[in-house]
Amino acid sequence: MKILVLHGPNLNLLGQRETSIYGSATLSSISETLDGIAGDLGVSLTHFQSNHEGELVDKVQAAHGAFHGILVNPAAYTHTSIALRDAFGAVEIPFVEVHLSNIHAREEFRQKSLLADLAVGSVVGFGPSSYFLGLKALVGALS
Amino acid sequence: MKILVLHGPNLNLLGQRETSIYGSATLSSISETLDGIAGDLGVSLTHFQSNHEGELVDKVQAAHGAFHGILVNPAAYTHTSIALRDAFGAVEIPFVEVHLSNIHAREEFRQKSLLADLAVGSVVGFGPSSYFLGLKALVGALS
Amino acid sequence: MKILVLHGPNLNLLGQRETSIYGSATLSSISETLDGIAGDLGVSLTHFQSNHEGELVDKVQAAHGAFHGILVNPAAYTHTSIALRDAFGAVEIPFVEVHLSNIHAREEFRQKSLLADLAVGSVVGFGPSSYFLGLKALVGALS
Amino acid sequence: MKILVLHGPNLNLLGQRETSIYGSATLSSISETLDGIAGDLGVSLTHFQSNHEGELVDKVQAAHGAFHGILVNPAAYTHTSIALRDAFGAVEIPFVEVHLSNIHAREEFRQKSLLADLAVGSVVGFGPSSYFLGLKALVGALS
Amino acid sequence: MKILVLHGPNLNLLGQRETSIYGSATLSSISETLDGIAGDLGVSLTHFQSNHEGELVDKVQAAHGAFHGILVNPAAYTHTSIALRDAFGAVEIPFVEVHLSNIHAREEFRQKSLLADLAVGSVVGFGPSSYFLGLKALVGALS
Amino acid sequence: MKILVLHGPNLNLLGQRETSIYGSATLSSISETLDGIAGDLGVSLTHFQSNHEGELVDKVQAAHGAFHGILVNPAAYTHTSIALRDAFGAVEIPFVEVHLSNIHAREEFRQKSLLADLAVGSVVGFGPSSYFLGLKALVGALS
Amino acid sequence: MKILVLHGPNLNLLGQRETSIYGSATLSSISETLDGIAGDLGVSLTHFQSNHEGELVDKVQAAHGAFHGILVNPAAYTHTSIALRDAFGAVEIPFVEVHLSNIHAREEFRQKSLLADLAVGSVVGFGPSSYFLGLKALVGALS
Amino acid sequence: MKILVLHGPNLNLLGQRETSIYGSATLSSISETLDGIAGDLGVSLTHFQSNHEGELVDKVQAAHGAFHGILVNPAAYTHTSIALRDAFGAVEIPFVEVHLSNIHAREEFRQKSLLADLAVGSVVGFGPSSYFLGLKALVGALS
Amino acid sequence: MKILVLHGPNLNLLGQRETSIYGSATLSSISETLDGIAGDLGVSLTHFQSNHEGELVDKVQAAHGAFHGILVNPAAYTHTSIALRDAFGAVEIPFVEVHLSNIHAREEFRQKSLLADLAVGSVVGFGPSSYFLGLKALVGALS
Amino acid sequence: MKILVLHGPNLNLLGQRETSIYGSATLSSISETLDGIAGDLGVSLTHFQSNHEGELVDKVQAAHGAFHGILVNPAAYTHTSIALRDAFGAVEIPFVEVHLSNIHAREEFRQKSLLADLAVGSVVGFGPSSYFLGLKALVGALS
Amino acid sequence: MKILVLHGPNLNLLGQRETSIYGSATLSSISETLDGIAGDLGVSLTHFQSNHEGELVDKVQAAHGAFHGILVNPAAYTHTSIALRDAFGAVEIPFVEVHLSNIHAREEFRQKSLLADLAVGSVVGFGPSSYFLGLKALVGALS
Amino acid sequence: MKILVLHGPNLNLLGQRETSIYGSATLSSISETLDGIAGDLGVSLTHFQSNHEGELVDKVQAAHGAFHGILVNPAAYTHTSIALRDAFGAVEIPFVEVHLSNIHAREEFRQKSLLADLAVGSVVGFGPSSYFLGLKALVGALS
Repeated sequence: MKILVLHGPNLNLLGQRETSIYGSATLSSISETLDGIAGDLGVSLTHFQSNHEGELVDKVQAAHGAFHGILVNPAAYTHTSIALRDAFGAVEIPFVEVHLSNIHAREEFRQKSLLADLAVGSVVGFGPSSYFLGLKALVGALS
Repeated sequence: MKILVLHGPNLNLLGQRETSIYGSATLSSISETLDGIAGDLGVSLTHFQSNHEGELVDKVQAAHGAFHGILVNPAAYTHTSIALRDAFGAVEIPFVEVHLSNIHAREEFRQKSLLADLAVGSVVGFGPSSYFLGLKALVGALS
Repeated sequence: MKILVLHGPNLNLLGQRETSIYGSATLSSISETLDGIAGDLGVSLTHFQSNHEGELVDKVQAAHGAFHGILVNPAAYTHTSIALRDAFGAVEIPFVEVHLSNIHAREEFRQKSLLADLAVGSVVGFGPSSYFLGLKALVGALS
Repeated sequence: MKILVLHGPNLNLLGQRETSIYGSATLSSISETLDGIAGDLGVSLTHFQSNHEGELVDKVQAAHGAFHGILVNPAAYTHTSIALRDAFGAVEIPFVEVHLSNIHAREEFRQKSLLADLAVGSVVGFGPSSYFLGLKALVGALS
Repeated sequence: MKILVLHGPNLNLLGQRETSIYGSATLSSISETLDGIAGDLGVSLTHFQSNHEGELVDKVQAAHGAFHGILVNPAAYTHTSIALRDAFGAVEIPFVEVHLSNIHAREEFRQKSLLADLAVGSVVGFGPSSYFLGLKALVGALS
Repeated sequence: MKILVLHGPNLNLLGQRETSIYGSATLSSISETLDGIAGDLGVSLTHFQSNHEGELVDKVQAAHGAFHGILVNPAAYTHTSIALRDAFGAVEIPFVEVHLSNIHAREEFRQKSLLADLAVGSVVGFGPSSYFLGLKALVGALS
Repeated sequence: MKILVLHGPNLNLLGQRETSIYGSATLSSISETLDGIAGDLGVSLTHFQSNHEGELVDKVQAAHGAFHGILVNPAAYTHTSIALRDAFGAVEIPFVEVHLSNIHAREEFRQKSLLADLAVGSVVGFGPSSYFLGLKALVGALS
Repeated sequence: MKILVLHGPNLNLLGQRETSIYGSATLSSISETLDGIAGDLGVSLTHFQSNHEGELVDKVQAAHGAFHGILVNPAAYTHTSIALRDAFGAVEIPFVEVHLSNIHAREEFRQKSLLADLAVGSVVGFGPSSYFLGLKALVGALS
Repeated sequence: MKILVLHGPNLNLLGQRETSIYGSATLSSISETLDGIAGDLGVSLTHFQSNHEGELVDKVQAAHGAFHGILVNPAAYTHTSIALRDAFGAVEIPFVEVHLSNIHAREEFRQKSLLADLAVGSVVGFGPSSYFLGLKALVGALS
Repeated sequence: MKILVLHGPNLNLLGQRETSIYGSATLSSISETLDGIAGDLGVSLTHFQSNHEGELVDKVQAAHGAFHGILVNPAAYTHTSIALRDAFGAVEIPFVEVHLSNIHAREEFRQKSLLADLAVGSVVGFGPSSYFLGLKALVGALS
Repeated sequence: MKILVLHGPNLNLLGQRETSIYGSATLSSISETLDGIAGDLGVSLTHFQSNHEGELVDKVQAAHGAFHGILVNPAAYTHTSIALRDAFGAVEIPFVEVHLSNIHAREEFRQKSLLADLAVGSVVGFGPSSYFLGLKALVGALS
Repeated sequence: MKILVLHGPNLNLLGQRETSIYGSATLSSISETLDGIAGDLGVSLTHFQSNHEGELVDKVQAAHGAFHGILVNPAAYTHTSIALRDAFGAVEIPFVEVHLSNIHAREEFRQKSLLADLAVGSVVGFGPSSYFLGLKALVGALS
C-alpha cells in the first residue's frame, strides 16, 4: 500500500518558526518518524512539500493510480484553496487532514476548512502526533 | 494514570440508531476495545454516559483530583452547552474531544464546537477509531 | 395503536401562567380531552411532562418499540435542544409537533424550530385545539 | 357561517405535478371532501384558485362582509407577497394558513411566511389533511 | 418577606475554580454574608444551587406563592436557556440578575443575556458584592 | 401639464380599513382634493388604482408620451416590485413617491423602497397631505 | 419540435427604453431573427410577452404537452417570482434562461436568479445574441 | 404659534459647498423664504444653526414651553446622534424632519435616520422646497 | 477619597421628562441623596452634567490626579462615543457605569455599551437606586 | 483574428474526473471542436491550461498585443483570484467566461464570480457547448 | 503654502497616557518637529487640538480660503463622525489622515475610517513619524 | 542594512495598465528612485516581482537572515493570501505595507488587508510616493 504525504505552505520552516506554537520538531524528523510507523504498518510513504498552490494541485492529480491514500496538512491553503478541494474531489483518493495546532483555538479565519467535508476524517491539535495518529487512521480506513 | 470516558446524549443508542451513519458498534463494544487499549498503555478507564446536561457537568466537576485526563464525545451538547464548557474550564483537566462522524460534512449547526478551543485536540470522523486514536493521543499528551 | 404525548418545560403551569396568552385550560383538562378523542379513534395515550431536557430525551429513546407515534409540544426546547432533535432522529418514530400559541407572531428567537423538518407536520396557534387536531393528524398519518 | 377557501399559484396542477411530493389528489377532489366536512359542521364554502397575485388580493378584499373566515394555501405567494399580507391585515377576517408539504423541510426560501403572524394559526405537512384539519380549526376558532 | 437565592451551573466550585477571575470566596461564605444582610433588612433567604437546567426551572416554578422575589446568578444558562426565561415569565416574581465577573469584558457569547429584559435590573462585575448590592436592590424594588 | 396619479394594492380600501392608522379619508375624497389643487396649479390629473402588479406596470409604460409626471403611492409593491422599478426606469418620466403613514416607524420590511432612489423625491407620513404636498412638489420640479 | 419563447415585464419597450444599455433592437425584430434561426434548425416558435406575473405562470402551465422547450427572458421576475419558479418546476419542460445585459455587472438585487438552478443553462450579456445563442443551446440540449 | 427651525452641522455652508448637489441657495435666503411663508401662515419662526451636537441638544431642551413645533434638518447627526433623539423624545414637541437631497439615493450610512420614527413625518429630496413643504406640513399637523 | 459623578446628555431633564419611564426624582434630589451616602462612607463628591460630548471628555481627562474614582451615567453617549471611551482608557481611573432604566429591555441600539468592558462593573435598572448602589460598589472596589 | 483559450485548475482531468457531472468529453476533444468552429469563423486559437494561478496571470498579461480576445474557463479560480481579475482589468482584452456546469445550481461558494462583471458576457451550464457558444459570442462581440 | 494641523480628542494627553501604546512624545514635541520639517519645506503650519466634535467641524469649515491643505489625526472621531466627514467633503481642501498606532491591529471598531476614502491618502502606524511622513506626503501632493 | 522590496501580481504592468488610476511611472522607474533614496539613507535594496503566490512566499522565507526589513506591495494577494501572511508571521522580519491607490476608496473586496495587523505600519494612496515614504518609515523603524 502506497501513501502520499503532502505538506502545504510554510511547513518547510517547522522547527525554525514560532516554536512556542509549533514545537521544535522539523519536517524531516517528522518524516522519519512517519517512515518508521509506515514500516510497522507495512505501507510505503512519499513525501512532498510546497509553498505553491498549483504544485500541490498537480501532485494530488498525479496521485491518481499511483497512491492508495493521502495524508495532508494543507496549512494556509486549508482555508483559501477551492482548487485544492476540486483536485481531491476529482481524484477520489481517500485522504486524512491533519493539523499540528488546534485550529479551533486560533484566528477566526483559520476555523473553516474547505477540505474537511471531503476527507475521511481529521486529527487536530496534537503537534507531530497529529501526523502519526492520522497515518494510522488512514491506513485503518483503507483496510 | 486514570482516565474518565464521557459520552453525551443519545450515544447509549449506538449500534441501534441510524447505523448507516454511525455503524453497528455498540457503546459497550467500544468500551471493551478502549479497555483493552488502556491495558496496553497502562492506564485505567471509568465510563459514563448520560442524556442530561447537568449530570455531565456534575461528572466533570467530580473528576477534579480523581482523574488525570478526560476523553469526551459530547454529542449534541458539543454545540449548545456553555455549562459543560465552563465545567471543563473550571477543573482544568486535559481532555480530548472525539466524534464518530465527520461533523464538518453534516448540518450547519453541528459545525461549531463550544469545547474545541479548550481541548488538547480533537479526532473526528473515523467511527469507533476516533475513540481509540483519541485515547492514545490523550495518554501521549499527558506523558 | 399506542401514542406517547410529550410536554416540554413550563407546560405543567398551563392554566396558571400568563392566561391571556395561553388560556385557562390546564394540562390535565387537555389530557382528558385527548383521552376522549383517542378513545373515539381507537388508540391509547401515555402522557409525560418534564422541565428537564435529559428526561425528555430519555423518554423519546424509551419510546422505541413501545409506541407507534409521538405527539409533542417541546415548548422552550423547540428552539435550543439539538439533543432532543437527535433523539427523534435516532428512534425514527413518526411525530407531530404542536404549539398552543402562534409562535410566528412572537419573539424572534421562538420562530425557528429545531424539530420541524423531522416531523410529519405541525399544528400551530389554536390553543388546546392544536393538540386535538395534531392527534387526529398523527393517527391519520400512521394509518 | 360562510367560509372562503383560497388557493395560490400552481395549485390548479395538483395531482398532475410532482406527485411524489404533493400526492395524487386533485384540487377538485380536495374541494369535494372539504364540502363534505363543511356540511357536517354546518358551514358553506366558496372555492377560488388563481395564479395572479392581484386577483387573490381582490378576492380577500371582496370577502369583507361576505365571509366569516378564510382558509388559505398561499403557495408561492406565502413568501413574496406583502400585498396579500396587507389585504388580510385590512379586512381583518380570521384566517387559517395551510400547506400540503412540510415547508420546514424544504428550501431555505420557503421557510419564512409573510402571513403566519397575522393568521389564527397554521397546519403544515399532512397533505390534503392539512386542509381538512385547518377547516375544523378555523370553524372552531370562529365559534 | 421571603427571597429565593438561585445559583446556576458550576457556581458550587466558587473559591476552588479559576480564582484569578472569580476570587477566593466560596458559595457558602457568600451565603453567610447574604444571610447577615438579609437579617438587617428583615427578610429571610432560601439558597439553592444546581448544575441542571431542569432543576432550576422546577425551583422557579415552585417559587410561585412561596417567595416575594428571586436573586439569581444564572451563570452559563444566562446565555442558552429559554426554558429558564419562560419559567421566570410564567411565575411573574420580581427578580434581579447578578454576575460576579464583568461579562461585558469576556467572550462574545457571554455578552447576551436571555433573562435581562425580564429582570427588574442587574448588577454586574463587583465579585461577591454583586450579590450583596443585588439583594439590597431587590428588597428596595419590592418595598 | 398632465399628471398620472397611481395607487397601489389595497388603497381602494382607504377609509374603510385600519382607520386608526390610515384615517377616515377615502380614496375618492383624496382624489377630489387633489383635483382641486391641480385646478389651482393649472394641471390635469388622471387617477388609477390596482391591486395587480402587472396592471401598474402597464400603466407606467403607457404614460410615456401621455403624461409629464407621475404621483405614486406604490403601497406594498414599494418593497417587492422590481418590475415596477424597471418600468419607471424605462419611461423616464419624473415621479414623486408618497406614503400616508410614516413607513420608517413601521415594520422592518416596509423600510426599504425599491423606487426611492429613482424618484425626484418623496413625502412620507402626513396622511392625505402626503399626496397634496407631493403633487405640489412634483409640479414644482416639472416647472 | 415546438418552442415557446417567453418575455417578462418591460421587454415590450425594447428599442424604446434605455437604449444605451439595451441597444436599439425591438422585440419584434428579435422575434423575426429568432424565427429565421428556428427555420434553419427545423423548429417552430410561439412568442409571448407580459408584464403580469400571473399570465406568465399561466403560460408556462399551459405549455405542458404543447411545447418541447421554453426560451425565457424573465426580466424583473427573475429575482422575485417563486411562483414562476414553481410553474417551471411543475411542468418539467426543459428551458434556457437568457438576459440581454450582463446582470452580474448590475445592481446587487439583479444578481440572484430564482430560476437559474432549474434551467438547462443560461446565456447572459450579449444583447439580442443572448436569445440567438440560447435558442441554439436549447435545441441542442433537446436533441 | 411659534416654530423653532433647527439646522445641523455644515448647513451654514449652503450655497458655498458642493453646489452641484445642494444648489446655490444659502441658508439665509432659505430662512427669508421661510419667514415669508410663515407670515402667510400666521406663525413666527426662530432660526438656529450649529455644528455642535451638544448645542442642538440644549436648544431642543430649551424649546419646551417656548415653541409649538420644530422644523429640523439634522444633517449628519441624523445618523449618529442618539442624544438628539433622546432630546426630542423628552420634550415631546411635534417636529418635522427635512432633507435637501434624496438621502435614499446616497451612501449606505445616510439611509437610516435615528429621528424619523419620532417625527410627525418627513420631506426628502426637493432642495430648499423640502423646508417650505415641511413648514406647511408642520403647521398643518399642529392645527 | 474623592469621587467625580458624571451625567450625560438630557439627564438635566430628569423628573420633567418621560416620568413614566424615568420616575419623578430630579437630578438635584438624586445628588442630595448621593451626598448623604457619601458622607456616611466618608468620601466627597463632585457633580457634573453636560449635553456636550467634548465637555464630558474634558472632564474625564481633568479628573486625572484629582479624583480616585468616577461614577458615570453616560446616557445616550453610552452607545455612540468612542471619544469618551478613549478618555476613560487614558486616565485609568476606576469607574462604575449606572443606568436608571433597564437598557436590556429597551431599543436594540441601547443594548450595547462602548464603556462597559472598561468599567469595574455596572448597575442597571433600579431607578435612582442604581446611582446609590453604584456609589457603594465603587467605594467598595476602591478600598 | 487571434483568440486565446484559457483553462483553469483541474480542467486537464476532464473526461477522467466526476463524469456524471462533467461528461466524458476530454479537454483535447473540446479543443479540436473549438478549432473546427474557429476555422469556420476564420479565426485562429491558442490553447493553454494550468493549475497555477500565477501562470494564468502571466498568460493574460502576455496576451496584450498578441490576441484580440480571450475565452476563459477559470474553474476554481473564478471564486478566489483577485490577481486574475486584476490581470484582465489591466490588459483590457475583451473576454467571455464559460462554465461547463451550471454553477448557480452548485455550492454557495461557487455562485460568485470575481470576473463576471468585467467580461463581455458569460455562458453557463451547457457542458462543452458552453465553450462553443462562448467562442461564437466572443467572435460576434469582436466583429 | 499654509497647512492646518488638526488633532482629535484625547491627543492632548499624548506622552502622559498609555505610553506603552503611544510612546513618550508629547503633542508639543511633535508640533515642534513638524514646524522644523515645515521650515525645510517652505510651508507654515497652524496647530489645533480639541475634544469637541463641533469645534473640529468649525475649524475645517474656517480653513476654506485660509489653508492649502490639512494634516489630520481624527482619533476617536475617525470612526463616529459623519459631521467631520461632511465638513471635509464641503471645503474640498486636500487632506492627509494620520494615525500613531496601527489601527488595523486594534479593536474591531477602530478599523473603519469614515474619512479615508475622501483623503488624498493615509499614513498609519509609525508613531510620531506618521505625522512627519504625512506632512511630506501632503506637501508633495499639493505641489 | 539590507532591505527586500517585494511587488505582488500585475505590478510588472505599471505604467502600461490603467494609467488613469495608477499613473505613468513604471516599476523600473520606481525602483530607480527607491535606489537613490536608499543610497542617501545608507541601505541597499533587492527588488523582486512575481505573479505567483508561492514564489512570493518562498522569497519571504528566504529573507530570513538575509534582510533586515521588507517593503511590500502585495497587490491582489493583500486580500486573499493567508499563505503570505503566515510567511511574514514565520520569519518575523519587520515590514511595511504600501499601496499606490487609496484602497479605502475602491471596491469592497479591496478594503480588508490580511497583512496589515502584522506590519509595522502602512502607507496608502500617494502613488509612487507611497513606496518612497514607506521606505523611509521602514528604515526609521529599524533604527
